This record gives sequence, C-alpha cells and structure tokens, in this order.
Amino acid sequence: MIDDLATVDRTTAEPIEAVHRRLRGFLDRHRPPTPCLVVDLPAVGAGYRRLRELFPAADLYYAVKANPAHEVLRLLAGLGASFDVASPVEVELCLRAGAHPDRLSYGNTVKKRSDVARAHALGVRLFTVDSEPDLVNVAAAAPGADVLCRIFAEPPASSTPFGRKFGCDPELAGPLLRRAARLGLRPRGLSFHVGTQQLDPGAWEHGIATAARLAAELAASGIPLTALDLGGGFPAGYRDGAPPLAEYAAAIEASLDRHFGAARPALAIEPGRSVVADAGILRSEVVLVSRKAYHHAHRWVYLDVGRHNGLTETEDEFIAYDLLTAHDGGPTGPVVLAGPTCDGDDVLYERTTYHLPVDLAPGDHVDVLAAGAYTASCATVGFNGFAPLPTHHIGADGEPVDGCGHGG
Amino acid sequence: MIDDLATVDRTTAEPIEAVHRRLRGFLDRHRPPTPCLVVDLPAVGAGYRRLRELFPAADLYYAVKANPAHEVLRLLAGLGASFDVASPVEVELCLRAGAHPDRLSYGNTVKKRSDVARAHALGVRLFTVDSEPDLVNVAAAAPGADVLCRIFAEPPASSTPFGRKFGCDPELAGPLLRRAARLGLRPRGLSFHVGTQQLDPGAWEHGIATAARLAAELAASGIPLTALDLGGGFPAGYRDGAPPLAEYAAAIEASLDRHFGAARPALAIEPGRSVVADAGILRSEVVLVSRKAYHHAHRWVYLDVGRHNGLTETEDEFIAYDLLTAHDGGPTGPVVLAGPTCDGDDVLYERTTYHLPVDLAPGDHVDVLAAGAYTASCATVGFNGFAPLPTHHIGADGEPVDGCGHGG
Repeated sequence: MIDDLATVDRTTAEPIEAVHRRLRGFLDRHRPPTPCLVVDLPAVGAGYRRLRELFPAADLYYAVKANPAHEVLRLLAGLGASFDVASPVEVELCLRAGAHPDRLSYGNTVKKRSDVARAHALGVRLFTVDSEPDLVNVAAAAPGADVLCRIFAEPPASSTPFGRKFGCDPELAGPLLRRAARLGLRPRGLSFHVGTQQLDPGAWEHGIATAARLAAELAASGIPLTALDLGGGFPAGYRDGAPPLAEYAAAIEASLDRHFGAARPALAIEPGRSVVADAGILRSEVVLVSRKAYHHAHRWVYLDVGRHNGLTETEDEFIAYDLLTAHDGGPTGPVVLAGPTCDGDDVLYERTTYHLPVDLAPGDHVDVLAAGAYTASCATVGFNGFAPLPTHHIGADGEPVDGCGHGG
Repeated sequence: MIDDLATVDRTTAEPIEAVHRRLRGFLDRHRPPTPCLVVDLPAVGAGYRRLRELFPAADLYYAVKANPAHEVLRLLAGLGASFDVASPVEVELCLRAGAHPDRLSYGNTVKKRSDVARAHALGVRLFTVDSEPDLVNVAAAAPGADVLCRIFAEPPASSTPFGRKFGCDPELAGPLLRRAARLGLRPRGLSFHVGTQQLDPGAWEHGIATAARLAAELAASGIPLTALDLGGGFPAGYRDGAPPLAEYAAAIEASLDRHFGAARPALAIEPGRSVVADAGILRSEVVLVSRKAYHHAHRWVYLDVGRHNGLTETEDEFIAYDLLTAHDGGPTGPVVLAGPTCDGDDVLYERTTYHLPVDLAPGDHVDVLAAGAYTASCATVGFNGFAPLPTHHIGADGEPVDGCGHGG
C-alpha cells in the first residue's frame, strides 16, 4: 500500500533545515498559487519514528484532527500507527487510508449514540468516556467494547471554576468504570490530556500520580488498571521554541517510575501536532505593506493568509509561527501582521513582537514554518471569498506524491 | 429573475415571533439533519426594507460577507440593493445573483493588484483605499475608478496602541485623496466603520465629525467630499438585546445635521448582520448533558454545533445567542454550553450565564436564534470530521425556495 512512499520509511530524522530546503525547493520550482500548504511526507514519517523511539513502550495513536490528509494517514497507517479519532468521518478517513479498525481509538467523549453505533459498525472497539450518559451510549451502541475513562489532568486549584470540557473529576472514575463493567463493557483504564503545545515536560506528573492513586482504588473493586492513555500535548517547533521531546519522555518515564514502579499499565500516547507540524510550510504572499499614521513606527504587513484560511491557531496569538522571507538577513523593523479578509479581527500578531525586513514588498513570499498541523483542516469554507487552503504533499525527491485527490 | 420570490417583496416587517414560527415549522415538518441553518427569505427582504426606510437618503450596500448565499444575494439584488464586496469571488457571487457591477463597492482595503484588476475587469468602478500602496494598486489596475478613503472611526485615545486593521489616521486622508486625483482616479469621499454589532447608536458621531472637518480641508484643495460611507455595525437581536435601529438612524441624522447642516454628501451604509441575522435559525441537537464532578452545580450541555461548524462568533463569547428548546417554560438550571469537536476551546459559553431546562436531554433540539449572519459562511471545511453547516432557504409559505445548489 505504501510502495510509492517507501523512500520515507527512514529511521533517523534529518536536520529541520534540510526539510525546509526541500519544501521551499518545491515551492520555488513549481510556484503554486498562494496561499498553500506543502507537507513533506518524509518528515512526517521521521516525526512518527522519533516519537516511537522516545516512547517505545507506548501505543502511538496519531490524533487525526491535527492533519487528516489522506496522504498523511496513509503514510502513518503503513508505518503501523494507531489513530485517535473524534467522529465517524475520521473513522472512515482512517479506514480508507488502510488502518485496521482495531487500531482506532474513539477519544472524543462528546458523541451521539448514533455516532457510537456508526463507529462500532465500522469495527471500532475502544471508546473513551467521561460521564454516565456517554458511558450508557457506548454500552447501548457498542456492546462489549473496551472503555477508558478520561479524568481531569490538573490539580483542582489550577482548573477554571467550571473545570474543563473533557474529562471528569477523578473521584468519578471509579464509579464510571465499575458501572462500565456492570453494563457489559470492558473497563481498560484511564486517560488524561495536559493541553496542546504543552511547554512543561513535567505537566504529566499530576495526571500520572492521580492515575496511580485511582489504580489502587480500582484494583480493590476488582478492576485492574490495564491501560493508561497519556494523551497528546507534545510540542512542535514554533518561533519561541519548546523543550526537546526527549525531555518529555524522560519526565514522563520518571513520573511513571515514581508512581507505578514496575507495575505499569499498558501505555498510549496521542501525538498529533508533534508528528506533522514541523513537516509543513505554508507559503503566503505579501498583499500590502502600509503605514496607517505618520507617527506609527510599525508597518502593517497584510498577507494573503489569515485566521480564516489557514492560520486559525493565531487566535489570541496562541501560536507564534516562525517566518522566513526572501529578504532575511537585511535590516528589519517592527510590524503588525494581518490576514486578507474584511474581518477586523483577522489580525495575526499585534501584541506579539515581530520584526520583518524593511525591504518586504507586495508579491514577496512569507513562509510560515511548522504549519503542518491545524491549518488546512481548520480553514473556513471560504469566508469573504477566500478559499480553503490547498495542500501539496512531497516525497524524498522533493516532488509531489500522488495522492487521492485530496491535495491542492 | 425573482419571480419565485415575489411573495417576499413586502413593505412591512412582521413580528419576529411569526418569523420564528415559520422557521421552526419548516424544521419540525421536514426534520432535516442537524445541525443546519434555515433562512427565511421574507425576513431578509423585510430587514432590507426596514433599513431602506430608516436611511432613505443612503445607498444601501449589503455586506456580502455576512451571508453570501446565492438565494440571499439574488433576493437583495432583485430588491435593488447595492453590495459591499471584499474579494473577486464576492464580486462574482453578486454578478451571478443578478447585481449590476455599478452596484458593487470593493470595500476591502487589503487587496492584491491582481484582485483589483479582476474586479475592474468584471466592471467594478468603486474602491475603498486606506494607504498609499493600496491607492497605487487601484490607480494601476482600475484606471479612472472612483475611490473612497477609509479613516479611523474612533478618537485616538480609544484606539489600541497600534490602531486598527482598516482605515488610516484622518490626517492621511487629504494627502491620499489628492494623490488619487493626480493618479487619474476620482476621489469621491470618505468611509469609516464603527465596529460590528455596535450597541451605541452614538458611535457614528466621531466619524461624522471627523469627516466634516476633513471635508472643509479637502474642499480647500479642490476636492469636494461628494460621498460619505457610514459603514456597517447596525445590530441584530441577540440574547441581551440592542437599541432599536430607529435610534441609530436618529442619532446619525442628528450627527449629520450637526456637522454637515444642509450641505450633506451622498450617503452610503453597509449593513450585513442587521439585514440577515434575525432571518435565520440554526437548529442543533443536544449530544450529551453531563456533570463532570459531584460538587458541580452546573451541567455541561454539548451540542452538535460549535465554534468550528457554525457558531464562530461565540469566540470570546462575543455573540450571546438567544436559544429556544422544546422544554422552555419548565424549571431551569445553569449550564456550560460546548460544541462537539475534540477541541478543548470549542466551548460556546462558560463565563456568560446560560440557564437551560433541567429536562433537556440528548436528542432534544436547541434552536439558535438570529443565526443568519456569520455562521454557515464561517464554518470550517470539516475540522475533526464535522461537516460545514448546510443551509435551507424558505419562502413566505414556509417551504423551501428553489436555489441554485448552494443550499443544504
């Protein structure tokens, strides 16, 4: 199935600069219309293998939502990945990409009973729950399935007053898993999630400690904690950096040692961003560079990509992407970066300081690095007449890989 | 062209409750899959006519971005509306809906020269600019066109440190319009925008005063201010209400009197939301109702619509939609409302207090009112496997109006 991707089946990662050269080489040779995303499949494979190396004992469930492109899913299925899915459509995408349904974990705790039934009919046998109504749905529509219970990952004091959208108070986990057993399901264990682009390698400590405490309580009622899903949150390389993934692996290993000792459950992780983000470059074009007042020191730089057609994660300036331009190396000055739509909130960076070359002019390219995750799949259907983000996938030779019509 | 819409050509608005009954009647009879948007075309026509009545001296440029559905554009074109467009695609949508290009105003000041050329080739002759590079593009690609200069609408003290994405400092307007004349363009006047869903009917005062001051300055250099575009910002009816549109018309009238007296320029307004929002209901379904901790007083209510598939404007809880359920009238309790995706930020209302019936259960409908603007057109291409929002358009008989394939 992945014959045409054989060249990406590598065991070591190459320097990120080499990936950038390959991506930009493709862009410079083919000059596709901007904005567009280019994803380097060898780098996706390398990202997957890197996490496999760092977490050798864990099942790796790729979080499909990060980048659901067929080419990416097909590559990862061929490399033996499992998949974290959130909807019947994502189940179907994975199956079409060659994944066996026993490799799928339905991790979304917000699901209609009909969604559970659809996933079950397609062969999915592992579901995560975090409430009684969710559990009852799974029992009714996926009889006999394995279930994980998702718990809050943070100490109570650090939560919002309302807690979080996913997970439940740890004190509910025991009752839910015992209820699961009574409903004929197979209670497998716990999951938690420390939040996306997590910059603290120690963030898993509280969840692991909580899981270990609950494991003892569950064992006392005859329910061994056989599985622990550590979720995602592993970072990609944006402008302001992140600790190396090896530090995350080491910190998690130490937490597991501390709280579980030798009696560890089977482990799972759900990386998404950390597999695909670094493999993508989003090429945009400068629309305008202007000053809006005589006394302003900064320029406004308007790109042809913004919050509605690819750079969704600049909301609240959460992700500060690294940028490359054709004029890098020359003198720079402060800018406000904004997208092309008529939406006054379609501003990328205003509080976050960016300096770009003073020579930057309309028509110049601005390349957005580490753009392989949460970009094309988050674009709108065409707000203000700006089309969704086309995507190209390239192989080790820097040329397009034949997909199945999901590319640009 | 609008023969089949003739019944919506009404001159008086009916009570909003009647519109809701018609919309919900359609939904109850046809039970389309949820989530979906239903837009009542008679109410769109009434919204347009109401603004025409309130601003009889102004050209009404419908802001296409609010709802670019073909059925809506076709109806408004038939009623004689002009259109505010922001991209070549929006130009094409309007022309396909039957608008004459001399009815189009290209109001986006962020545009590539190639976009200007495309719009000009399609017949557009009115462009708004707010910077010299933008002006130079228009002069090059739309020679001889009419131009408006967009200025900041707020007093300097109320602006962010960086100003705003659109508009320029008023002191730049004179130089830009004089430059426009030298470049062979026709400087027509000024525009400004007070911000969407503006709740202060007096918000136009500063912009009108500034425009009057600049008019005197411009006249001194031989450039009469022949047009003033007051932008949009007129509100729709969300949960927490807004002043009646008549108060806006009165406040603007008073400002114009105060600053221009009898020597008024030609006026334009650019309503979008206030034309279409109230005409739409978004029907969603409750996915789950759960409690995440024993000590929580509130329930989490998860809907099958969220920030990624229609309710984009709940970002930062900006728009607090009014909701109707089948259990209204019974006892209620506090809830947190969230969408169906695996995104932890896909939460609709957490800080904004909502109380919903305690009887609310999975499968129940929750109808989101005043959802006709900035919903379907802002949905993602399918984040997490959740499809864009299908739209149905109904006529005065409450039955679907034959569109051109842009409906659900």
